[in-house]
Amino acid sequence: MHMTVVLFDGYTALDIVGGYEVLANIPGMEVDFAAIDKGLVAADTGRLGIAAFRRLEDIAATDLLFIPGGPGVYAAISDPALLGHVRRLHQHASWTVSICNGAQILGAAGLIEGKQVTTNWFARDLVRAYGATVLDTRFHRDGNIVTGAGVSASIDTALFLAGLIGGEALSRTIQLGIEYYPAPPFGNGSPDLQPERAKRIIAGLEKTAPQRLAARNIPF
Amino acid sequence: MHMTVVLFDGYTALDIVGGYEVLANIPGMEVDFAAIDKGLVAADTGRLGIAAFRRLEDIAATDLLFIPGGPGVYAAISDPALLGHVRRLHQHASWTVSICNGAQILGAAGLIEGKQVTTNWFARDLVRAYGATVLDTRFHRDGNIVTGAGVSASIDTALFLAGLIGGEALSRTIQLGIEYYPAPPFGNGSPDLQPERAKRIIAGLEKTAPQRLAARNIPF
Repeated sequence: MHMTVVLFDGYTALDIVGGYEVLANIPGMEVDFAAIDKGLVAADTGRLGIAAFRRLEDIAATDLLFIPGGPGVYAAISDPALLGHVRRLHQHASWTVSICNGAQILGAAGLIEGKQVTTNWFARDLVRAYGATVLDTRFHRDGNIVTGAGVSASIDTALFLAGLIGGEALSRTIQLGIEYYPAPPFGNGSPDLQPERAKRIIAGLEKTAPQRLAARNIPF
Repeated sequence: MHMTVVLFDGYTALDIVGGYEVLANIPGMEVDFAAIDKGLVAADTGRLGIAAFRRLEDIAATDLLFIPGGPGVYAAISDPALLGHVRRLHQHASWTVSICNGAQILGAAGLIEGKQVTTNWFARDLVRAYGATVLDTRFHRDGNIVTGAGVSASIDTALFLAGLIGGEALSRTIQLGIEYYPAPPFGNGSPDLQPERAKRIIAGLEKTAPQRLAARNIPF
């Protein structure tokens, strides 16, 4: 199988790497990081850069199209070239995956109207606006579109997809390989059950993300 | 605070990004990705490259020294320049963190003799050989050294450290920001409780990791 990870300026790194670390471990999986242009692509913090060593237009087809989220999504959904490649590669892909508000990119590409999806808790209304039914689950499959909730949900989502591709034993073996037996130090839960104060802080950060992106001092 | 993420050829990407995504969200945290040389540094798969935009020798001091693991560790522990920088930066750091078999780098730098640490389940004997007591916990603090278990444990370990640095409310707010309410699709557990067949597969992959590293076809 061949997997394409779509990079765009201002992605959230864990959206990508949580999924990549699982899916790249499926035996025989080839992985290409690709963007509109080749070169380093900056994460939302401006302090981490991942290399796109392929241009999206040089990828004729892919089996697994992987689209992360992050504050860069707000610009990405206004980029007709990026949306065109997402639409084109989705057409013949076995699986299309979005993590976090990467679902907005699927929406802007016209791929989720009438479908059930999940996304980052903060982006639910924005994704619903594309005509999708938005669930509050950690991951969800509707046909060949698999969507994940925010950021770290990329791991659970990719293990779920690894199970669809290769079965439970494969997924559990990869889970051992990445030693994914999570133990959050202050407990588990769900975004909806967090204190209002924490929600207000994160919602404020989400709202100002585009301005903070523009103010980054990227060292490369 | 200033955080230095140490890059070396053949790191495991989620060891880094799981920790970075948490710690970079501590208010005021500056992050530098650094290696012996500037430039792209390849992950263990050879398909993902992260940029080192600083040389380790150009970093005079750092508050938080972050050392990932991966199959590249076997070469890293034979690199006196890398070990020298780890030793030097640890001396004045408030916190030194290793993830996975990154603990072997701490061991080779002489920093964990007589200390209690945790590591990837597969690397326990290798770490014990440096005179440390090796626990089977997900994360552990001994003085100003915080160690994490394998790969995805970087997230739990970093949330634990965020709690030490800024308190439980900060850690829980970051946890919401990265939506870390894990739900592994085939259940949670521990590496020690996995089926012997899965353990043999992963142990085999770990043992052949150096050969597979050498055979990578890195596209950059």
